[in-house]
Amino acid sequence: MEQANKDRSLVSKVMDGLVTGIVEEKYGAILPPQDVLSKEFDVSRTVMREALSMLLARDMLDVRPKIGTRIRPMSDWRMIDEDVVNWRFRAKPDPLFLRDVIEFRILIEPRASAQAAARGGAADIAAIREAFDAFRAIRPGEPGYQEADELFHTRIVVASGNQFFKQMAAIVRGALSTVNPILTDKDGLWEGAVSSHQRVLEAIERRDPKEAEIASLALIDYTAGEVGDRFSDEPPTRA
Amino acid sequence: MEQANKDRSLVSKVMDGLVTGIVEEKYGAILPPQDVLSKEFDVSRTVMREALSMLLARDMLDVRPKIGTRIRPMSDWRMIDEDVVNWRFRAKPDPLFLRDVIEFRILIEPRASAQAAARGGAADIAAIREAFDAFRAIRPGEPGYQEADELFHTRIVVASGNQFFKQMAAIVRGALSTVNPILTDKDGLWEGAVSSHQRVLEAIERRDPKEAEIASLALIDYTAGEVGDRFSDEPPTRA
Repeated sequence: MEQANKDRSLVSKVMDGLVTGIVEEKYGAILPPQDVLSKEFDVSRTVMREALSMLLARDMLDVRPKIGTRIRPMSDWRMIDEDVVNWRFRAKPDPLFLRDVIEFRILIEPRASAQAAARGGAADIAAIREAFDAFRAIRPGEPGYQEADELFHTRIVVASGNQFFKQMAAIVRGALSTVNPILTDKDGLWEGAVSSHQRVLEAIERRDPKEAEIASLALIDYTAGEVGDRFSDEPPTRA
Repeated sequence: MEQANKDRSLVSKVMDGLVTGIVEEKYGAILPPQDVLSKEFDVSRTVMREALSMLLARDMLDVRPKIGTRIRPMSDWRMIDEDVVNWRFRAKPDPLFLRDVIEFRILIEPRASAQAAARGGAADIAAIREAFDAFRAIRPGEPGYQEADELFHTRIVVASGNQFFKQMAAIVRGALSTVNPILTDKDGLWEGAVSSHQRVLEAIERRDPKEAEIASLALIDYTAGEVGDRFSDEPPTRA
């Protein structure tokens, strides 16, 4: 126990030292080899490897065969703890949680859609179209439906070009994973879902930020209305 | 190394098992003692303690003397990795990063202010007033100025009552820590900062969501303008 705690605080100290070096651009694009770093920080290779693996898990580094450990652009560094997001969304949703989820989607997605329309790169917008085509080809309940829907929404926040909006994609995916199972057993909902997704896509392709924002809001409102109907008989409970 | 990796994946597995039990409400409000949990999961006390400490660090649990390890409300579970946020904001800001930071604040704070005005509890709103009074009493550059400003903005997102907005407080604090040092050496800026904070506070106290939103936007715009002036001579560089 003592030893485990000591190792943990040592790992934290090494992580902090590595990050300081990275933000001060001490290492350039590629980190020195592990044994060099172990010597520099005067720690065992095990401690160094653990510190590096913690940074790797946060998308701060990646390992390239024959090249070494590359420092990723800071805009990729993962500010969202996806474990916690997944755990949080694994719990049975209550009406208060669903309200918060929908409010958050209304906050982020319409603005992201507008920005995607205003300044998304051609490749980013083509990727949204591709995700839509895949989404349209699958029916709710079929394998891959959930993933296709998540990809469409993720690519919109990516196309916004804002690194903080991009970070929120994990929460948007969590929201979809909560809301979709409530919706998929409803008749006629799928056609509506396809056309409301299409409206967002086409506004982004036409480079019309205002319409992209309105279409995105309409898409979420549509879902929110359906989810609200399902929960309206149950009294609110606290998570 | 082998052993360290094995321990790590075991810790992950135990965390996942604990969280499953928690979201399925298997344990009630208080977790069983550590030795009982170690037996239940058939792992060493060291592994169990490490798994618990990871959940503790994410605000999922807290330890109450004589009571035991309490499971915190899910809305407190920390989705933001504050280490990464702090590291990200420690790097020298470039214009693209500042643009993204300001866009994110414009996304979150005006809406949070409006919601605080619409449905913030009396205690939450009194806490914003208290933070404002502390903020007004300190001059930029004096000890505690940064903390007082951060507290004011944090309490607004808390008062919004939306658990996702609340989670974003860490990013808002990071944004302030980046922006304030750029601003504090400017003459006459402090008076403007106090009055623009006051306008937000008073709109929330008057329960006027529309005015709270506009005042919050004006506060950020004011800062953004000043920051923009400082960076307008420098060419954009990528983070």
